[in-house]
Amino acid sequence: MADLRSDTVTRPTKGMRAAMARAAVGDDVFGDDPTVNALEAHVADLFGHEAALFAPSGTMANQIALQLVVPPGGELLAGADAHVVTYELGAAAMLGGISTRTWGSDGAALDAERIAGMIRPRGFPSVPTAAIAVEQTHNLGGGGVIPLSTLQDLRAVADTSGVTLHCDGARIWHAHIADGVSLAEYGALFDTLSVCLSKGLGAPVGSLVVGSRERIARARVIRKRMGGGMRQAGILAAAGRYALDHHLRRLTEDHERARIIAEALAPFGVVDPEKVRTNLVPLDLSKSDLDAPTLAARAAERGVLIAAMLPRVARLVTHLDLDDAAMDQAIDVLSELLT
Amino acid sequence: MADLRSDTVTRPTKGMRAAMARAAVGDDVFGDDPTVNALEAHVADLFGHEAALFAPSGTMANQIALQLVVPPGGELLAGADAHVVTYELGAAAMLGGISTRTWGSDGAALDAERIAGMIRPRGFPSVPTAAIAVEQTHNLGGGGVIPLSTLQDLRAVADTSGVTLHCDGARIWHAHIADGVSLAEYGALFDTLSVCLSKGLGAPVGSLVVGSRERIARARVIRKRMGGGMRQAGILAAAGRYALDHHLRRLTEDHERARIIAEALAPFGVVDPEKVRTNLVPLDLSKSDLDAPTLAARAAERGVLIAAMLPRVARLVTHLDLDDAAMDQAIDVLSELLT
Amino acid sequence: MADLRSDTVTRPTKGMRAAMARAAVGDDVFGDDPTVNALEAHVADLFGHEAALFAPSGTMANQIALQLVVPPGGELLAGADAHVVTYELGAAAMLGGISTRTWGSDGAALDAERIAGMIRPRGFPSVPTAAIAVEQTHNLGGGGVIPLSTLQDLRAVADTSGVTLHCDGARIWHAHIADGVSLAEYGALFDTLSVCLSKGLGAPVGSLVVGSRERIARARVIRKRMGGGMRQAGILAAAGRYALDHHLRRLTEDHERARIIAEALAPFGVVDPEKVRTNLVPLDLSKSDLDAPTLAARAAERGVLIAAMLPRVARLVTHLDLDDAAMDQAIDVLSELLT
Amino acid sequence: MADLRSDTVTRPTKGMRAAMARAAVGDDVFGDDPTVNALEAHVADLFGHEAALFAPSGTMANQIALQLVVPPGGELLAGADAHVVTYELGAAAMLGGISTRTWGSDGAALDAERIAGMIRPRGFPSVPTAAIAVEQTHNLGGGGVIPLSTLQDLRAVADTSGVTLHCDGARIWHAHIADGVSLAEYGALFDTLSVCLSKGLGAPVGSLVVGSRERIARARVIRKRMGGGMRQAGILAAAGRYALDHHLRRLTEDHERARIIAEALAPFGVVDPEKVRTNLVPLDLSKSDLDAPTLAARAAERGVLIAAMLPRVARLVTHLDLDDAAMDQAIDVLSELLT
Repeated sequence: MADLRSDTVTRPTKGMRAAMARAAVGDDVFGDDPTVNALEAHVADLFGHEAALFAPSGTMANQIALQLVVPPGGELLAGADAHVVTYELGAAAMLGGISTRTWGSDGAALDAERIAGMIRPRGFPSVPTAAIAVEQTHNLGGGGVIPLSTLQDLRAVADTSGVTLHCDGARIWHAHIADGVSLAEYGALFDTLSVCLSKGLGAPVGSLVVGSRERIARARVIRKRMGGGMRQAGILAAAGRYALDHHLRRLTEDHERARIIAEALAPFGVVDPEKVRTNLVPLDLSKSDLDAPTLAARAAERGVLIAAMLPRVARLVTHLDLDDAAMDQAIDVLSELLT
Repeated sequence: MADLRSDTVTRPTKGMRAAMARAAVGDDVFGDDPTVNALEAHVADLFGHEAALFAPSGTMANQIALQLVVPPGGELLAGADAHVVTYELGAAAMLGGISTRTWGSDGAALDAERIAGMIRPRGFPSVPTAAIAVEQTHNLGGGGVIPLSTLQDLRAVADTSGVTLHCDGARIWHAHIADGVSLAEYGALFDTLSVCLSKGLGAPVGSLVVGSRERIARARVIRKRMGGGMRQAGILAAAGRYALDHHLRRLTEDHERARIIAEALAPFGVVDPEKVRTNLVPLDLSKSDLDAPTLAARAAERGVLIAAMLPRVARLVTHLDLDDAAMDQAIDVLSELLT
Repeated sequence: MADLRSDTVTRPTKGMRAAMARAAVGDDVFGDDPTVNALEAHVADLFGHEAALFAPSGTMANQIALQLVVPPGGELLAGADAHVVTYELGAAAMLGGISTRTWGSDGAALDAERIAGMIRPRGFPSVPTAAIAVEQTHNLGGGGVIPLSTLQDLRAVADTSGVTLHCDGARIWHAHIADGVSLAEYGALFDTLSVCLSKGLGAPVGSLVVGSRERIARARVIRKRMGGGMRQAGILAAAGRYALDHHLRRLTEDHERARIIAEALAPFGVVDPEKVRTNLVPLDLSKSDLDAPTLAARAAERGVLIAAMLPRVARLVTHLDLDDAAMDQAIDVLSELLT
Repeated sequence: MADLRSDTVTRPTKGMRAAMARAAVGDDVFGDDPTVNALEAHVADLFGHEAALFAPSGTMANQIALQLVVPPGGELLAGADAHVVTYELGAAAMLGGISTRTWGSDGAALDAERIAGMIRPRGFPSVPTAAIAVEQTHNLGGGGVIPLSTLQDLRAVADTSGVTLHCDGARIWHAHIADGVSLAEYGALFDTLSVCLSKGLGAPVGSLVVGSRERIARARVIRKRMGGGMRQAGILAAAGRYALDHHLRRLTEDHERARIIAEALAPFGVVDPEKVRTNLVPLDLSKSDLDAPTLAARAAERGVLIAAMLPRVARLVTHLDLDDAAMDQAIDVLSELLT
């Protein structure tokens, strides 16, 4: 089986398992897990922030961050296809009382000026906008990378207007590799970030919220309420640290394989290879005879797993557990099906 | 003072006060208020629905309806400038746990096909879309009227996709008058509507939620929880009934005055009179030297009250308590200020 | 029909209707209703507080106050049978995110020391207690009056522990009349109060939240989000003011009639007249052959309406619209049914 | 250091680490983790239920279960000192919109008849009671065990009244060992249970929700929204399974050590050894010179860590990582401090 549904399917490597097996642990709810503490300090440091907090999932890391920056009754601006809007099951509204106003399905092609124009200022009868969330790289945006200059413009917008800027950085590692922007440069642009260790980096479980000391202290309370307080989480943190140390540079391989797949499938009119910059290959089936679930089902019968993200959007993801043979198999099977 | 801030500022007329003074009343929380019961039946009838429920405000009527059609954790599609998104203080998310995905600041110029494309279907990992809300006439859309054919297209979209269609019809009376579409025709297009008696119609207090018997039974519970259960509300319902009987036809006068104002101010580049179809005159100050609060403040000094809706959007509203002299005063003062 | 279900069933008197008919009004959402403003100032003054806010119901006044004093995620201590716990449909939790820990069905017989022992202090892993709510007079507690000294003890507990003290004073007027404690004395003991004009006082609609200027400014935002912002609410406020001016002293009559009813029904073992201190007569049917709905149904057939509050608790309420003849009828019918 | 703060501080044993190191894993969000699937099936089986779901913490397992059995706006009955009321930071209300009415600090000494009397039936104006939650063993109740007959009485109450019965069984293993009631017997009494692997059983991370297939299908959605969807969670599930297979029987040792500690400290009047039935030793400091934080701080200086649960309640917990020497040290240090 070539599993290209997501980079979340990667299994821990031998070295990673060894790191887990020997991890020093303690009760992290009491703040006593040395491996968690070290990972939190390390990740905060990578992004040039004061503190970070380990969480069991990307969804929880995002939701903790949103609750940090938007009070109940407040408003978040985000893309209509953002993960926080589309794939977190309405958590922001239901759990955090947070309203979302969305700026369309622009993926990574943000328009800072347009977003600036959406901000509702304090002092008017409208709901004041509390925060803006961007996603780097952008999942439903096909792994697109928001250019650094756009993010700098957004930072300026945030500073001018007094709103907070959050980055759903589940795959910020891929942006870092694709664009050569350092993690610290990215970190400097955001008030809070969520970053994920269990997607492209290949750790089994874990994300972090990154921010100021004050915010992370509050995040600890929110995490507990959300049920994300784990005990000897050092087992997981050890895998995460191993992933950061060993699997970051190699993301270039995943990006290359994604590009090769995109070029191979481009003739079928379902993907523009120029837009495939990281490890996600979105297939636009709006003009195809096959809808996404059908394509996914037929590919699965032939040993290739892909994801049906929306009725007419399928997705292939390259990752640590995929080699060239799997890539070739995926190309062959999908070429056949799309013909 | 010529008060053009809103049609909510109207004071009850002599006849309306008399109707209130003689209203038969009972305890409406027990279902015993004959005047409320009659008004609810009458309004349901006007829109061809089974039932209706009296509520203390348009915001509550909308929020009750949204809680009826979107479960906590579910998603509502609406315009980015919709009243339910902009002017209800985040109630849908905070009180109802309802997520919003928004389609831009299109006012009454909806694109049914685009909205259809936004619906997230059940069975995918994304949040399923539960309902669509439109606003007729559209407040921040300058009192624009959504064409009947667009609404019919949206109804077809709702039927096909299995989502619910709500109409924030606070000023649906104006659409009815402007486009000559009957209330029953409008009613047939929506699963739920909210309609307001205290805006253009001139009643002091009161809105209604309109829908099926089953939904209105649930609405009664939601209203109680929201604190909208009032006792001898027949006093207010009597005014509402009077307004329906006596102030509906006369909305043409308000529409005409609004058009005259718009034509008078058009030379200043702040409003397109062709777009002023009902009783709202939005002023676009994006190219003006004055922002909305400043313009409002200066006009107030000269005896003309207008509303600053957003930093660069002001609004004039014609209504029952404004005669031609007030209209002329408003034109004179604003012309002077905008020069 | 003798309607003893509740004091909410009272209909406006002739004088009250006249006051409504001539009330000066404005748009209260803009703060422009002189009659509402005057009523708010007057009620704030009665209780010696800085400010007050008019609301469409007692439930909304309570819920606004609770949201003022308990943040989402925070904890409220209240009696298990408190109105805010039992009869507001879970609003505190669902709309305000407020947890309740309850101290039992003690009615007005509070034990300040026991309540003090329930407070969870800050700095512990437990949820910190934010506020305590008491109810004066106590509805499910049979209209019982919390003694002034108990309230003073609770005030001391609140001061020592740093929690806030709210009074659901829907019927605080009856406590004032029954115990001769001035409204200002009561007001001095609480951080926030809700008081109701449409129960014993006989106004058709309206309650107020009473508190500090800062809290009432925030209350205005919460009220708007809850859908409680009404426009020409002066119509209702005029009735409320009339009720305060004309119907407060006469509550003694209601108390006397309630006592007479209780004494008449005491022989049937359903009520202890010594405990009937205000206008509520609770009937404890735990040892009766009849449950509350059956008793209420049979009494209704004979022209006497009473309330089934719980399966084995019925309630009679005396009020403005009940004279001695109605009282006698209620006594006759219930005596017959309870025999 | 002898760490008696909690049984959550246990570190994975060598055998457990080996089990984790060799665990077969997959993406559990896709349902592909064989070790998680096997653990879920095994735990469901132990309790005689259809299904179970792995969660990152006891708090999340409880909160998922509560959201399963109580709708937003609904009411839960629980003990005032229940973990779900006291130590989950108000999650039930804030995240689930769930109201709590509490029956006092009875710990494991429940009164089924009294609880039955608290249930508010449907059809009355009061909030209907949706569920009852009990805690076995009871944490703030000093590890007390609810007798089987009491639970059977409660089951009958639930059946009669139509409410749902949830068991916070974080330490149900200890009840099973202490009272010799089988897990299946317990399972048969409850509609939903949460059970924890990272407390007495010694796994690093993980709890499960147990229930019907239909409920667990819904639980999967709730878990995702709460941020509890983890990817290769089999690493953790392997530890959990190891704990179930190897650490269940040995809980008797912890119970014995707890009893020895209680007997040693009984002379100081802070604990009744007859009530210490499992692995928790609560110290009642209400008559002591030392409050809980002070006692904990002084004991820590002497190498013994204990928990300050409430201002006057400290707690010692025996567990897998504590041997007789640690027990003796704890006894010596606390005896000295309490003298």
